[in-house]
Amino acid sequence: MCAIHGNRGVVYTGPGKVEVQSIAFPELSIGKRACHHGVILKVVSTNICGSDQHMVRGRTTAEAGLVLGHEITGQIIECGRDVEYLKVGDIVSVPFNIACGRCRNCKEGKTGICLNVNPARPGAAYGYVDMGGWVGGQSEYVMVPYADFNLLKFPDPNQAMDKIRDLTLLSDIFPTGFHGCVTAGVGPGSTVYIAGAGPVGLAAAASAQLLGAACVIVGDMIPDRLAQARSFGCETIDLREEGSMEDKIERILGEREVDAFVDCVGFEAHGCGCDHGKEQPATVLNSAMALTRAGGQIGIPGLYVTEDPGAVDEAAKQGALSMRFGLGWAKSHSFHTGQCPVMKYHRPLMQAILFDKVKIADAVNVQVISLDQAAQGYAEFDGGVAKKFVIDPHGMVPA
Amino acid sequence: MCAIHGNRGVVYTGPGKVEVQSIAFPELSIGKRACHHGVILKVVSTNICGSDQHMVRGRTTAEAGLVLGHEITGQIIECGRDVEYLKVGDIVSVPFNIACGRCRNCKEGKTGICLNVNPARPGAAYGYVDMGGWVGGQSEYVMVPYADFNLLKFPDPNQAMDKIRDLTLLSDIFPTGFHGCVTAGVGPGSTVYIAGAGPVGLAAAASAQLLGAACVIVGDMIPDRLAQARSFGCETIDLREEGSMEDKIERILGEREVDAFVDCVGFEAHGCGCDHGKEQPATVLNSAMALTRAGGQIGIPGLYVTEDPGAVDEAAKQGALSMRFGLGWAKSHSFHTGQCPVMKYHRPLMQAILFDKVKIADAVNVQVISLDQAAQGYAEFDGGVAKKFVIDPHGMVPA
Amino acid sequence: MCAIHGNRGVVYTGPGKVEVQSIAFPELSIGKRACHHGVILKVVSTNICGSDQHMVRGRTTAEAGLVLGHEITGQIIECGRDVEYLKVGDIVSVPFNIACGRCRNCKEGKTGICLNVNPARPGAAYGYVDMGGWVGGQSEYVMVPYADFNLLKFPDPNQAMDKIRDLTLLSDIFPTGFHGCVTAGVGPGSTVYIAGAGPVGLAAAASAQLLGAACVIVGDMIPDRLAQARSFGCETIDLREEGSMEDKIERILGEREVDAFVDCVGFEAHGCGCDHGKEQPATVLNSAMALTRAGGQIGIPGLYVTEDPGAVDEAAKQGALSMRFGLGWAKSHSFHTGQCPVMKYHRPLMQAILFDKVKIADAVNVQVISLDQAAQGYAEFDGGVAKKFVIDPHGMVPA
Amino acid sequence: MCAIHGNRGVVYTGPGKVEVQSIAFPELSIGKRACHHGVILKVVSTNICGSDQHMVRGRTTAEAGLVLGHEITGQIIECGRDVEYLKVGDIVSVPFNIACGRCRNCKEGKTGICLNVNPARPGAAYGYVDMGGWVGGQSEYVMVPYADFNLLKFPDPNQAMDKIRDLTLLSDIFPTGFHGCVTAGVGPGSTVYIAGAGPVGLAAAASAQLLGAACVIVGDMIPDRLAQARSFGCETIDLREEGSMEDKIERILGEREVDAFVDCVGFEAHGCGCDHGKEQPATVLNSAMALTRAGGQIGIPGLYVTEDPGAVDEAAKQGALSMRFGLGWAKSHSFHTGQCPVMKYHRPLMQAILFDKVKIADAVNVQVISLDQAAQGYAEFDGGVAKKFVIDPHGMVPA
Repeated sequence: MCAIHGNRGVVYTGPGKVEVQSIAFPELSIGKRACHHGVILKVVSTNICGSDQHMVRGRTTAEAGLVLGHEITGQIIECGRDVEYLKVGDIVSVPFNIACGRCRNCKEGKTGICLNVNPARPGAAYGYVDMGGWVGGQSEYVMVPYADFNLLKFPDPNQAMDKIRDLTLLSDIFPTGFHGCVTAGVGPGSTVYIAGAGPVGLAAAASAQLLGAACVIVGDMIPDRLAQARSFGCETIDLREEGSMEDKIERILGEREVDAFVDCVGFEAHGCGCDHGKEQPATVLNSAMALTRAGGQIGIPGLYVTEDPGAVDEAAKQGALSMRFGLGWAKSHSFHTGQCPVMKYHRPLMQAILFDKVKIADAVNVQVISLDQAAQGYAEFDGGVAKKFVIDPHGMVPA
Repeated sequence: MCAIHGNRGVVYTGPGKVEVQSIAFPELSIGKRACHHGVILKVVSTNICGSDQHMVRGRTTAEAGLVLGHEITGQIIECGRDVEYLKVGDIVSVPFNIACGRCRNCKEGKTGICLNVNPARPGAAYGYVDMGGWVGGQSEYVMVPYADFNLLKFPDPNQAMDKIRDLTLLSDIFPTGFHGCVTAGVGPGSTVYIAGAGPVGLAAAASAQLLGAACVIVGDMIPDRLAQARSFGCETIDLREEGSMEDKIERILGEREVDAFVDCVGFEAHGCGCDHGKEQPATVLNSAMALTRAGGQIGIPGLYVTEDPGAVDEAAKQGALSMRFGLGWAKSHSFHTGQCPVMKYHRPLMQAILFDKVKIADAVNVQVISLDQAAQGYAEFDGGVAKKFVIDPHGMVPA
Repeated sequence: MCAIHGNRGVVYTGPGKVEVQSIAFPELSIGKRACHHGVILKVVSTNICGSDQHMVRGRTTAEAGLVLGHEITGQIIECGRDVEYLKVGDIVSVPFNIACGRCRNCKEGKTGICLNVNPARPGAAYGYVDMGGWVGGQSEYVMVPYADFNLLKFPDPNQAMDKIRDLTLLSDIFPTGFHGCVTAGVGPGSTVYIAGAGPVGLAAAASAQLLGAACVIVGDMIPDRLAQARSFGCETIDLREEGSMEDKIERILGEREVDAFVDCVGFEAHGCGCDHGKEQPATVLNSAMALTRAGGQIGIPGLYVTEDPGAVDEAAKQGALSMRFGLGWAKSHSFHTGQCPVMKYHRPLMQAILFDKVKIADAVNVQVISLDQAAQGYAEFDGGVAKKFVIDPHGMVPA
Repeated sequence: MCAIHGNRGVVYTGPGKVEVQSIAFPELSIGKRACHHGVILKVVSTNICGSDQHMVRGRTTAEAGLVLGHEITGQIIECGRDVEYLKVGDIVSVPFNIACGRCRNCKEGKTGICLNVNPARPGAAYGYVDMGGWVGGQSEYVMVPYADFNLLKFPDPNQAMDKIRDLTLLSDIFPTGFHGCVTAGVGPGSTVYIAGAGPVGLAAAASAQLLGAACVIVGDMIPDRLAQARSFGCETIDLREEGSMEDKIERILGEREVDAFVDCVGFEAHGCGCDHGKEQPATVLNSAMALTRAGGQIGIPGLYVTEDPGAVDEAAKQGALSMRFGLGWAKSHSFHTGQCPVMKYHRPLMQAILFDKVKIADAVNVQVISLDQAAQGYAEFDGGVAKKFVIDPHGMVPA
């Protein structure tokens, strides 16, 4: 019924390059197999993610031609015949992790490592290298499988469009930042250090506040991003400044360590202080052990990879990092890694948005752009602006 | 060294009556045994609690002569010789539950049911019937045993005095309301019903907000208390109004049930709607089962007693209530009871206060009074005013 | 393709009566709607459950004609077209709770209160009154919806048939008893009281052992069932004997209370000691509060109902019980109710069986009977024999 | 009152050397300060630990003259005046971690990282380098501070002596192995890999069984230790044999990964297969990530250090290991480190011993020796015998 539509999407065309191209209109199929449990979405909003940048920078084995985009919110325009609890017209949030809802891991709520949707290894995502070959959603239309299981339906489409700038963040970075905080043990009264003030870091900071943290400290090297963190009540540390981190923390908290640490940087970390500029893939993890109190937990939503062809040394190319693990051991730390299982969090976080308990779009500084502005958005984001770019392919997002 | 001080305290003198009398200056002893692990406190602030009212109303076996008061904040004026980590001058919050820190329950964090401090049964408190015979703290001076274990020291005495209206609530009602929410499973995005808008109910409502709840609904029959709840962003239901509770909840939430229910009323509950005025000890528990969604949890910080000489019927006199337990069973509810183990929560909640993340004194409407105004405070509180009375025995609380 | 098969099943024909009748061969449909996510099973084994007895005794509103049976293990003979991860020939365990795998509760693992499969209320089961109208499985063939989500596939069909006496208990009573223990907080070193030595009680006792309990005490009034409990290492208390329960427990443990209490009796409880014989629906719950240590948890897998037309008094007919709740409150007890979400437990318990870590069939004394012996099995079971009847409709269970 | 006793203890006298020397009789003091909360123990049994070997091998900065021993069981011969709940004659287990019971960490149950008993950093132990300077207990008499808090009293001294071979393991390795399993998520039905078949590894294997694990696989390079593991029902893998670990696991489980992994080796790990013999400090951690299923947890009771003067390379000398962290991240692993907080586990594990639910002495192959045989015990243990040496300084252990 939808064959009359065309489709256009953001395509990776080689290191440093993306462009908007005509792409196939999605079908309810996976390869040659029909996908009766899927739906076709008209994309309402789709965000550019920091992890897309890893591919665009050429730090992965992504091949040219990949349609990007795993942060998707959409309106259903067609339902497969096995879809029972959704209907055409529903506005829905798509978790970036694709999950079957039928394997052991999905049944345990571990939708980030579904066993069925990626032949290569547990876990899949839209538009991402090594994540199962699913077509991305930075486009006008996209197909979502196992729709009844995966999708979060917003209770009222009009209300949803009013809050779409916030709700669009439910597909990835709000849950991802929140998961980092939860796994770091953040709760009422916690003191928290967030490493990195990119969109995930800012979402983690807002999440820590929602969880009742007493004080949230955000560290980064980019002044605009730190200013953004301060705009909603965070304390900040500029990593380019001289002086020990412990001293800086003590000036804020009166104590030299935090209760909880969230690594929102990942493997492309750079040294701080006099070393800033050099890539040091284990620097955030080693800081985590130094700055977290004994008995604390370390949440690691930032991506670490099994292979990194662009790494600074041979070890890091194999994903091997030089970690001062004995320090963490002496402090009884625990370390929590992996893709956020978005489904565990998206419904309660939607409620927090719908009842005005969190201003997540303001926290990460959402900027809405058209599909044709996508390449420019990628470039600006790579330059370190303190913005979260949300693509609005059909001009549906209210001004 | 302190024999030069006198001491005065609030004494229960019979049903309906309290008065301020001269009482003994506290000593570092328990009965005839020396109490080297104790401290003597100059009381900075001490609050009147709803559970004090149960005694004053004559609903318990409390005997005349009891010095009341279990919500105590104080300054240390003398340390027993086995106290190691506190010193004269420290300002400290006293958990209302007395705990030894040495029994199985204390080691498991269950300080509300310490096995050593009450010969009659697990659990003790200051100035309370059947809770171990400890002298209460609505007085100028009081003794606290096992001080290193029990007390929470505020990091800075000046800062503490600046925020004393808030910090004084750490000894009981803030942790108690918070515990009710935690055991009810309240978290980010939850919808919550709080039964009762007395100080514990209001503290629970503020706690639910701190925990990130999406919507907090408070039900009561007293308009001033409901107005107080609305003053910090709660929704309210006036139980005297006609109509089903489910309909009222649906008007607020768009759903007929809540995720989490907190009973801040206890055994002196009264019927609502056309039955209001009659005492119905199980009415809140039965409402909890009706109004909580399947799979939800019910937190019960409100006091239920093993014997109630003033109860409406013979069964209730034995503490037996007519509960529609099958309804809860059909909905897979869990029920969580008991005294709040204050120590589990007071430190993080102190942090939330010190970093300005919660305005608990405003939420419960703290009114500071002198020791001599205590009897009047009891009377007003019993009349249902929307206030939390905080006694300031030495005039130390800043205006 | 299966129209050539006939089908026979156990049918409830009125109070006290069941008989084996010809019934319709199952189809992949729900009412008039096709059920592409379902499978047709050839029933390998199907057990008679104590909760079936509630219906057969006429204690419910079950109507004549109901095909009974919710404890089903089977071999797939036909798959709906939406079934992806199962195939004809697989031998599978069917959780007694029917769950969609697509609603909020299922996604949270709360499959006992699925929101989609029973129009009347959350939660459904095969062959059970008020549980959604699904056809039971004490029959030769049965249909299971949402098969990919619901079913647990045994890794090797031959191994499965070798251990079928044990594996058949995964559909209900082993997980149900285990859930009772888990919610009661049973772990390594616990002392546990199991109320009731019927099959669920015995399964709970074996589960407590698997969880590492130090001492498991089982109470009942039927000597054969107590002997069965002793056969695998439990201590027992005969409730018909004089003397206080606390004294009896002290003789076994050296302490007068247990750490954890599991109610495997439910609403058809009878008094003990001098009252035995009289039905006292709250007696087990009140015992739980008396016998469980302060801080302990009470797991309640035994069924309590919202309406009980055959109850001893008007209150109990409405499901209202006279509970001494104040005693539980004084001891900080928590109470955990509801249908066991089988899916949470069946896989690990299958592993415990397959690796010979538990002898659950021996514990509950499985007796295999033919379909034609079903009525006799019901009658014997109702008489209190210490057996768990497993129907073998096709003579597939090895001798 | 005890000045008439002499005292002798095991003293580290330099790399590779220990000897029994006369040492001071313990006093109720810490430095020059009286220790009224302490007790003097007559040592009933005291075990040689693998972590003692790190010191004796010269892999730490331990200085000659250190009295060794942190695994202590004893009988109280003198109580300080602040000791309230213990008395002379009690037989008690001493957790190896010294804890004050009064700091934030102790109150949270994190007794392994007490903030008050070691000026250098959180956490202390008897007779161990950098752990607070406390005198060790491989001796005739020893002082234990904060006795009411730290000690576990056995309910009956005679019963305790009958089971002393098992109970002596409660001071360290049984809880430590158990903690490794708990933090690895081991529960009923789990498949578990235990790295290392020394006493902690064997204790972890027995713990996994007590926790209900379906299959426990133990890997080591020493045939006698593997035979010991098989003696109580474990599967084993000889790391010296050719072939991939995944293949070996598959032959046992039918799957190539385990649910849970426990590292009982620590920083002195050696390569396996063709590399065996070479020290490779990260090899166990890297195996953990390879062999644990996605979503699994990794418990790390094996010691990793902040400095290792005897390490193979400069990085390891600083405690920095080359970890393939990206692999763990891709599998959503969590990593749990640190000293076991013995108090969290010793009481339930005591119950499991007293009720004959675990044969931990048999599992680790306890061999009782006299104090004078201590040096020989150290030497044999260092040679890799499959024994756990328990020193019996007073000849109290029944034959």
